[in-house]
Amino acid sequence: MPSPTQNHRGAIVAIGGAEDKEGDRRLLKRFLNLCGPGDARVAIVPTASRLADTGERYSALFRDLGARTAPIVQVRDRRDVEREDWEAALEGVTGVFLTGGNQLRLSTILGGTAVATRIRRLNAAGVHVAGTSAGAAFVSEHMIAFGAEGATPLAGQVSLAAGLGLTNRVIVDQHFRQRDRLGRLLAALSLNPFPVGLGIDEDTAAILGPDNVVEVAGAGAVTVVDLGQLDASTAAYAEPGRPIQLVGARVHVLSAGARFDLEGRAATVLDEGA
Amino acid sequence: MPSPTQNHRGAIVAIGGAEDKEGDRRLLKRFLNLCGPGDARVAIVPTASRLADTGERYSALFRDLGARTAPIVQVRDRRDVEREDWEAALEGVTGVFLTGGNQLRLSTILGGTAVATRIRRLNAAGVHVAGTSAGAAFVSEHMIAFGAEGATPLAGQVSLAAGLGLTNRVIVDQHFRQRDRLGRLLAALSLNPFPVGLGIDEDTAAILGPDNVVEVAGAGAVTVVDLGQLDASTAAYAEPGRPIQLVGARVHVLSAGARFDLEGRAATVLDEGA
Repeated sequence: MPSPTQNHRGAIVAIGGAEDKEGDRRLLKRFLNLCGPGDARVAIVPTASRLADTGERYSALFRDLGARTAPIVQVRDRRDVEREDWEAALEGVTGVFLTGGNQLRLSTILGGTAVATRIRRLNAAGVHVAGTSAGAAFVSEHMIAFGAEGATPLAGQVSLAAGLGLTNRVIVDQHFRQRDRLGRLLAALSLNPFPVGLGIDEDTAAILGPDNVVEVAGAGAVTVVDLGQLDASTAAYAEPGRPIQLVGARVHVLSAGARFDLEGRAATVLDEGA
Repeated sequence: MPSPTQNHRGAIVAIGGAEDKEGDRRLLKRFLNLCGPGDARVAIVPTASRLADTGERYSALFRDLGARTAPIVQVRDRRDVEREDWEAALEGVTGVFLTGGNQLRLSTILGGTAVATRIRRLNAAGVHVAGTSAGAAFVSEHMIAFGAEGATPLAGQVSLAAGLGLTNRVIVDQHFRQRDRLGRLLAALSLNPFPVGLGIDEDTAAILGPDNVVEVAGAGAVTVVDLGQLDASTAAYAEPGRPIQLVGARVHVLSAGARFDLEGRAATVLDEGA
């Protein structure tokens, strides 16, 4: 349980979209368990979605799985922030869940508002934050706003935007296998190899602990892309639409139970799955 | 003088390019004075430039103005980082100066390397960091990599990349008046209104103190763009190449001596110039 005196942030859970909501719902249960077994209070942020019932749908899911409460942060445009009834929804929570939709709705509606500041402070104080699909893209400082599909990186293929900023260590891409997104993740990282890329498949999660170790959970893979040891790159000069040449990219394909240490940039694969 | 025990970062000085190097050289003198009058030791990082003599040119300029030393960080590609002779150049400095050129050279060559980490740590420990033109674009967490000219924002007009990350409070654009860059700065900020935009004219500087107050110095203006109070935006939906509608942007045009508080997002204009 988070308390103002603990000195490490809560977990950041990035889900690649399309998480199981009808079967064993493993990823949602895992997040709920993290937020306090038997006493989870998870606020739902449905801002990414244009559908009217997204918030209620996730609230019902979490309550059905055993959350004590699952209040909805009702912010659909920037004016909603002024109404301040969102404050009650975030009061005393142990977790925050960002739904899917369009990540540019999250960044353009929540960016620079008191809601974003509050969520950042909650996470810094130990509250766990999860996002699925667009919500996963938004959690980090550098967010992929949009970009073309395809396995190889082209100059100008990807557009970055400022995200929520819970960490600047990673850039997340979601629906990774399903939408053929290695190229755009490479293009994003090629602009500055400081962050590590996390390409997250559907129904799969990357869980960033406060120790900056990523654990993989769920059905698919997380593709970790590390350009920190790059020998050569043409990213500074490649013409728009032309391939970016990269020599020496490191790629790790990890599934449930495997870990990646963002400080040491090293992967650990377990013999048994989780 | 920086010391490991002080608990605030050094200043971040973003210069809009084309600073006076032959007349009274006011901005370079101002930075030198900040770095310790009579005892300034300023490392020059010429990585943005493809010209062989850029480092030596600035080193001579700073020594001519009274710097005790002005060593050059000789990093022209990622392999140079492994040579580690750059460590001596950054030893004991009171300031770091990033020259102009191409900001994607800075982010692709220095991003994720020990050189970038060292400069971030020096700044956190109180060492002042200045950049001009490409060097100014690079200092912040969100860097404008490239983008088209023009006064109004178009969807997809601007490409962001991860920068050096000394602050995430601002996005810098340089040669602002001279290259007609309001549109691309608005486009960048429209993706997430959290950072404040600093459009910096040539021979003009924005000096970000450790208190997150920006002071303007030099011959031209700094255009401060604040989308934090936006009433409406179409940034999440505008088609590529079409205008982004923005209602309620706040713009402040500030010249020497004026200040802008990034925490309170408020400008203070002096009656007399500086």
